Amino acid sequence: MNSFGRIFRVSILGESHGEQVGVVIDGCPAGLELAPEDFADDLARRRADGQFTTARKEPDEPLMVSGLFDGRTTGAPLTILFQNRDIRSKDYFALKNTPRPGHADHTAYLKTGGWNDYRGGGHFSGRLTLGLVAAGVVAKKLLDGVTIAAEILEIGGAQQPAKRLLEAQKEGDSLGGIIRCVATGLPAGLGEPFFDSVESLVSHIVFSIPGIKGIEFGAGFAAARMNGSEVNDAILDKKGRTLTNNAGGVNGGITSGNPLVFRIAARPTPSIRLTQQTVNLETGKKTEITIAGRHDTCFALRLPPILEGVTAIVLADLMLREGKLPRVLS
Amino acid sequence: MNSFGRIFRVSILGESHGEQVGVVIDGCPAGLELAPEDFADDLARRRADGQFTTARKEPDEPLMVSGLFDGRTTGAPLTILFQNRDIRSKDYFALKNTPRPGHADHTAYLKTGGWNDYRGGGHFSGRLTLGLVAAGVVAKKLLDGVTIAAEILEIGGAQQPAKRLLEAQKEGDSLGGIIRCVATGLPAGLGEPFFDSVESLVSHIVFSIPGIKGIEFGAGFAAARMNGSEVNDAILDKKGRTLTNNAGGVNGGITSGNPLVFRIAARPTPSIRLTQQTVNLETGKKTEITIAGRHDTCFALRLPPILEGVTAIVLADLMLREGKLPRVLS
Amino acid sequence: MNSFGRIFRVSILGESHGEQVGVVIDGCPAGLELAPEDFADDLARRRADGQFTTARKEPDEPLMVSGLFDGRTTGAPLTILFQNRDIRSKDYFALKNTPRPGHADHTAYLKTGGWNDYRGGGHFSGRLTLGLVAAGVVAKKLLDGVTIAAEILEIGGAQQPAKRLLEAQKEGDSLGGIIRCVATGLPAGLGEPFFDSVESLVSHIVFSIPGIKGIEFGAGFAAARMNGSEVNDAILDKKGRTLTNNAGGVNGGITSGNPLVFRIAARPTPSIRLTQQTVNLETGKKTEITIAGRHDTCFALRLPPILEGVTAIVLADLMLREGKLPRVLS
Amino acid sequence: MNSFGRIFRVSILGESHGEQVGVVIDGCPAGLELAPEDFADDLARRRADGQFTTARKEPDEPLMVSGLFDGRTTGAPLTILFQNRDIRSKDYFALKNTPRPGHADHTAYLKTGGWNDYRGGGHFSGRLTLGLVAAGVVAKKLLDGVTIAAEILEIGGAQQPAKRLLEAQKEGDSLGGIIRCVATGLPAGLGEPFFDSVESLVSHIVFSIPGIKGIEFGAGFAAARMNGSEVNDAILDKKGRTLTNNAGGVNGGITSGNPLVFRIAARPTPSIRLTQQTVNLETGKKTEITIAGRHDTCFALRLPPILEGVTAIVLADLMLREGKLPRVLS
Repeated sequence: MNSFGRIFRVSILGESHGEQVGVVIDGCPAGLELAPEDFADDLARRRADGQFTTARKEPDEPLMVSGLFDGRTTGAPLTILFQNRDIRSKDYFALKNTPRPGHADHTAYLKTGGWNDYRGGGHFSGRLTLGLVAAGVVAKKLLDGVTIAAEILEIGGAQQPAKRLLEAQKEGDSLGGIIRCVATGLPAGLGEPFFDSVESLVSHIVFSIPGIKGIEFGAGFAAARMNGSEVNDAILDKKGRTLTNNAGGVNGGITSGNPLVFRIAARPTPSIRLTQQTVNLETGKKTEITIAGRHDTCFALRLPPILEGVTAIVLADLMLREGKLPRVLS
Repeated sequence: MNSFGRIFRVSILGESHGEQVGVVIDGCPAGLELAPEDFADDLARRRADGQFTTARKEPDEPLMVSGLFDGRTTGAPLTILFQNRDIRSKDYFALKNTPRPGHADHTAYLKTGGWNDYRGGGHFSGRLTLGLVAAGVVAKKLLDGVTIAAEILEIGGAQQPAKRLLEAQKEGDSLGGIIRCVATGLPAGLGEPFFDSVESLVSHIVFSIPGIKGIEFGAGFAAARMNGSEVNDAILDKKGRTLTNNAGGVNGGITSGNPLVFRIAARPTPSIRLTQQTVNLETGKKTEITIAGRHDTCFALRLPPILEGVTAIVLADLMLREGKLPRVLS
Repeated sequence: MNSFGRIFRVSILGESHGEQVGVVIDGCPAGLELAPEDFADDLARRRADGQFTTARKEPDEPLMVSGLFDGRTTGAPLTILFQNRDIRSKDYFALKNTPRPGHADHTAYLKTGGWNDYRGGGHFSGRLTLGLVAAGVVAKKLLDGVTIAAEILEIGGAQQPAKRLLEAQKEGDSLGGIIRCVATGLPAGLGEPFFDSVESLVSHIVFSIPGIKGIEFGAGFAAARMNGSEVNDAILDKKGRTLTNNAGGVNGGITSGNPLVFRIAARPTPSIRLTQQTVNLETGKKTEITIAGRHDTCFALRLPPILEGVTAIVLADLMLREGKLPRVLS
Repeated sequence: MNSFGRIFRVSILGESHGEQVGVVIDGCPAGLELAPEDFADDLARRRADGQFTTARKEPDEPLMVSGLFDGRTTGAPLTILFQNRDIRSKDYFALKNTPRPGHADHTAYLKTGGWNDYRGGGHFSGRLTLGLVAAGVVAKKLLDGVTIAAEILEIGGAQQPAKRLLEAQKEGDSLGGIIRCVATGLPAGLGEPFFDSVESLVSHIVFSIPGIKGIEFGAGFAAARMNGSEVNDAILDKKGRTLTNNAGGVNGGITSGNPLVFRIAARPTPSIRLTQQTVNLETGKKTEITIAGRHDTCFALRLPPILEGVTAIVLADLMLREGKLPRVLS
């Protein structure tokens, strides 16, 4: 199911080293002003282009090949594609028969009988998140009055991770991280207890981002160790404002109007320079693998705009379902 | 969206103090032997009937009103209903205008303009999980060779929680818990990277269970603090067996054949005897609330069969999608 | 897929001679007043109870077991069930191994490996349309200002069919019919060209009614024999009013505001008293069959409320999708 | 909802005069050999390039930008795009404020508040059927042993329509037609009575093709005028073979193994050279319109490969659902 959403529906496509990656957005309201520049900031944040992220250089120019006319969305499917340019597939041909630990190489092989595009992870690549960011930019523009902000809480267990990152990079190792995402300005009443609770929808799309291993809302796992009297948020007024926000802005799967708060855990980048143990798919024998190529020391550094984007996708869809966003803008 | 699943689809219905709760299962293979006794164990585990769970006594007899003929499923929608009998709605009428903190009372009110059935949480009640357990029993029967087992890891932060439970009960307070669910015997290749990763589907349905605040797969949040070289699971053979299982049995959203492992965090039961602060929905003024009624000190104690059930629902659906379960049994 | 609809979603269940038939409606706006009496008229029209329809007597009392509280819908799944009472299954046991021509007996057998409930057609029975009528009643109540009326145009090829009906009944034969359904008062702009054109959705649900063999919109098949200059409807004003309505109220899959008009063809009732040729499923040999039991001479006589109901279901869903019906009534 | 299908799912995109049109196919089995040449025949049949079809010249070269690797499908979303080249949008700018009778211009305007791309019908154009044909080619390749053939039965009411076509062309008028589509070699047991009967799914997708006004299965509308004893197909053997095929290969929504047969009615091309009455959307006043541009005298001539394609899409999806097509080819 390469689609997600009920009214505002995104369909994703592409491979790391294929021709194009991108997204088709169905159900985007008509009349939204949209220009390539709108995508620049979030695409740049996703690229990161920093010291600890991949050296692969992609211009990431959004090609809007359908659904846009005279600078406005038409209500027809909005297609946003990106060319893959800086491809060095030869880095990957060597890996064809030696699945990289921690990657989807082996599960993809097992699922598809070996027909998967193994170059750079193929369809399982983090490059696919370009489409999510692009759709997220569109969704954010729709969510007037809503602010979504993701922030890195820790990398490799450290809140000031510079040293950890340098060490890991030097050692040819990698790090993960924990990121918090907060959406404020939401109306109360979004979500459905069964089966489209806000947590259900957010976690569903978040776990489509490669490398996410956990998610918690509000007090999350800590709530399991607190007493009910500590966790319950005292209700302050008819609008649903609460004294604390251990619920993370959702009760019974439905937004309360308080900020939606969740945290995710991203595993360390699976591609590392250190030698690892794997199997040769042709011979069936154990072998060792050393991964060349250009990799993030920590892809979690690039996650904030992706998390914001997928949150916006969920919220835009929920607001459209409830009639809280119009299908035609003026 | 009261339905979940693509081939094996469950649709849930009911309210805590309505006439019936239950589930309609579409896409159940024809020819499965099914009898009321099949449900007894998991329903009893869910009831718990223990010292720290609700005194509400329900016989929980499954009424199979469609989809079954001569003791076998027919391939037509399988409907399993349960009567609500031991209802003391008067306990709840007093609460109509004073939403209980930590419950969905207020969000339900805001969502429905006050038309929600507020008795015992209405549709937002844990009683709805009866349908999930019932559907899970059916799914488990389909999953020949797969074992799913959920186990309580800690309650109120303690691995031996008897004292914590007694204290909380005495104080009129409540506790949460952490539960691990493991599925073994799975084929490799289940799940799709976008947007139906195994983690996406499992978390989607898990977060429909009232009171869940977090989920993590494999090493989960701990993975965010480890190095890549620690987290990556060395691959041992062509079948996908790995030395460790930090991935929790899923890579790129797809099962590897290793055990599927996840942990969830359940908040403490929101209903507590202690006095809490809320608002009067009629007057809009702050007020206090003391909740009578019959409540779990810790509903997490009742979660294991529910978690097993929803996991089975996901897996049955994924196996049917992949043609790994037949539509007709013999 | 026993569900239909994106926001207003109906899920059907039951068998002709099972315990209950009915429907679960998800996404029904909260606050709709609903009482058993609301269903009486359409259920009576569906029963027909006439000279040429089945002698099976069912009270058809709607049991609303969830989603209703204090006489109003709550926004939670609305479940409407009907008991099957006047069951004479013994009429059918004789038919177990001799599939009735024109019925689904044989295809159901082939699909389910023989696990289907064959009594009275099981899940394939026209009795399942009770749920469609019930959901249609709810949908009609939502569609303020919209009028939906289905009318029999001909039975057995005759506009005044009394004689044809008497003859067919006397001969132990059966008749079909053609029915027109018209919805007026629709807003323009409902429907989507790909893949949810109004024609797509209406035909989808109409062909779920057992025994429908054709559907045409506006000028329909006759349009294929006219010139473009005859078929094109001259546009009269900005609101979309047209001089003629050969389009049947839909252009490009989208309502124009003119009346939605379609006609359907219903085959003759497949159950006839005349001897027919079939096969014995045990022996594999040809055999003859004479069908006892109670049958409609012409089930088309009972179709109008069913067609109105399914049309209302489609329109309610489309209006909710577009935000043209509120999710909460006041 | 720009998607159709449950396992084999097509998502359509594009506009008549936009940059690209095309389709994304999700759930296509991995390992299918696919080359641009595979599309040539059906694309050529769709173009028609004849005397009575549009003079717009498009090379219609399929660009497979994702889901294909080394000439085989990978199991990831398969994206097939087509450039629009021979665009003369200036033909259309004149029509911006004068909706063409019989077209979707006005309904699209009403639906989108005027934000629709009006050039050549925008997203409502027959050019979108390119994606359907392309997906149909893929589906046909999957359907080993199944033959699908559509045949024109009549044009403008004539079985030998040459004269009618010449006349209509000369007069600046247009014609419609009736086409029959037959699929043989199908397994029994495809389809579901509620709500995914074969007729439901076929009609759903067929009515997404612009300009279709009716569909009938087997004896269709004629069945409504026959007696039951004439319509019922005598069953010949255990496999479901019948003496006649008035059912059109479907009973109770499920294939019987007999040929699936349906006929559709296509209206005349709405674009005609003759002067027509419409409204000016700016002034609200009545006005006349004469349509220049390049148009089919009869687009029905181009429908056969489209009908075959959409039928193949439905059948491939149904076979995958039932586990009758593997998810991985070898």
